[in-house]
Amino acid sequence: MSREDAPHRKVEIVEVGPRDGLQNETVTLSPEDRAELCDLLVDAGLRRIEAASFVNPKRVPQMAGAEKVLSGVSRKPGVSFAGLVLNERGYERAVAAGVDEVRYAYPLTDEFARRNQNSTVEAGTELAGRLAELAARDGVGYSVTFAVTFGCPFEGEVKPERVLQVAREVAASEPDEIILADTIGVAVPTQVRELVGGLRSIVNNNTDKSTKVGCHFHDTRHTGIANAIAAAESGATVLDASIGGTGGCPFAPRATGNIATEDLVYALHGMGYTTGADLDKLIECAGWMSGKLGKELAGRVYKAGTFTPVAG
Amino acid sequence: MSREDAPHRKVEIVEVGPRDGLQNETVTLSPEDRAELCDLLVDAGLRRIEAASFVNPKRVPQMAGAEKVLSGVSRKPGVSFAGLVLNERGYERAVAAGVDEVRYAYPLTDEFARRNQNSTVEAGTELAGRLAELAARDGVGYSVTFAVTFGCPFEGEVKPERVLQVAREVAASEPDEIILADTIGVAVPTQVRELVGGLRSIVNNNTDKSTKVGCHFHDTRHTGIANAIAAAESGATVLDASIGGTGGCPFAPRATGNIATEDLVYALHGMGYTTGADLDKLIECAGWMSGKLGKELAGRVYKAGTFTPVAG
Repeated sequence: MSREDAPHRKVEIVEVGPRDGLQNETVTLSPEDRAELCDLLVDAGLRRIEAASFVNPKRVPQMAGAEKVLSGVSRKPGVSFAGLVLNERGYERAVAAGVDEVRYAYPLTDEFARRNQNSTVEAGTELAGRLAELAARDGVGYSVTFAVTFGCPFEGEVKPERVLQVAREVAASEPDEIILADTIGVAVPTQVRELVGGLRSIVNNNTDKSTKVGCHFHDTRHTGIANAIAAAESGATVLDASIGGTGGCPFAPRATGNIATEDLVYALHGMGYTTGADLDKLIECAGWMSGKLGKELAGRVYKAGTFTPVAG
Repeated sequence: MSREDAPHRKVEIVEVGPRDGLQNETVTLSPEDRAELCDLLVDAGLRRIEAASFVNPKRVPQMAGAEKVLSGVSRKPGVSFAGLVLNERGYERAVAAGVDEVRYAYPLTDEFARRNQNSTVEAGTELAGRLAELAARDGVGYSVTFAVTFGCPFEGEVKPERVLQVAREVAASEPDEIILADTIGVAVPTQVRELVGGLRSIVNNNTDKSTKVGCHFHDTRHTGIANAIAAAESGATVLDASIGGTGGCPFAPRATGNIATEDLVYALHGMGYTTGADLDKLIECAGWMSGKLGKELAGRVYKAGTFTPVAG
């Protein structure tokens, strides 16, 4: 088998800039701007875009107008537009708005669940199962994200066994993918390898359907790209990233956000992975985003430029 | 053998902020400030400090007063203060100033050598041999850095065989260490593993003396921490880093500099490596540096804070 044929050499990037990125910025972009951003990202070769959040706009004003974003994007074959949902009401809104996939996220510590949504891990897991049924009924894609899997701002360390126990329950409802999220950006590659390996064993053994394993990293403590590489090398096939590294962290006011899509693509392509993305166009997108937000973003490649080996 | 006893679990950090960091900043710190910085870094547990550059101060005004820096630092047992030298004249100055070790750097592409110093790779390698003899005569430590080993801004790709061929010649003169530098920040972990592995084979086989293998990464394209981890995991035992990620890149005006010491330490400690550094004190140093330079630095951990697992 050649290097390119090996299934794990292909990484699906889910662009979360329009949602997780912009949700954590002080400047609010209009739904029209966000739809334009989605189109630019698709033009840069990305095939999965987390376009909007179907949460209460009173709680997250940056995400108001989710339906307008979805109706504003240009549909293309092979491109999937996703919406984040946190409950059944959000799910119904997302499906009504025409998303191709719903992404449901919930935290794996009770203290985070209590403070953030007045809920529990158990309630979150039950909801994961109900949404799986709804998604199957409606024929939309369905992804489950486990938040704070590598560390919680309130409970501290999160034991891998705890994450994998929940993963077993969720895997039984056969979602299309399970994403391990380092919400507060504390993970290091050794942790990532352990948890990705453990989750892969579970989804490979416990379900008939092929549930994909993915990761979502924040670069809060500068380990994000190293973690993403560790995840890919451990067999994760889905990686979330945000154009320009847009975003922040509600738990660390001066922190940066998600790993930057263009930085991730630079690293992955250099290591022989394929993503389908066009790095030059991603750099243009990051410049667009920087202009709209009126500031320099955390991403590096869009500032330094790419590197093209010269014929010696 | 326990995890901590394994020799490769210990990484020596060479702090290059006072030299490579400050050399690439627009604000110039006085020799007194630079000596104070060195003392703060030593107080934070670092044991090797690249304190000054013995180049012509007309070419690098930020580095003027190298002798004053060296006479201003507090000497402590077990702490080594190094000076960068590019030629024999700089070597003599460094030794006269009382450095514990000299670090000689030269590029591994002829075009870079020609433009930067009107020299050649061959001449650089010859000088490496002569300086090794002088250092042995004078009883000072001696480190050789290969610049642009992972890519050259003028020649592009640099083949590993080319680097390893030069490494064979230099290893014969038995320096204390050889450092592979990604001067323009283009490397990815797969390259790092290949080159570190190749260099380790050479120094283990070709010399009687134990020559250490190290790396020097710039985070220009956001692969720096991932590369440093790849280097440590491939058996490199020396890593250069700069407090706060101070510095820049002469070939990319908007680029950041070296990997940040505190970010590197966060990642390495989290992965079970020991460095001897005190992360909280490093974070204070980065704050000091940020204040002196009057700007936010590229490092992330000093802004986000460290993460201490809470007892569950």
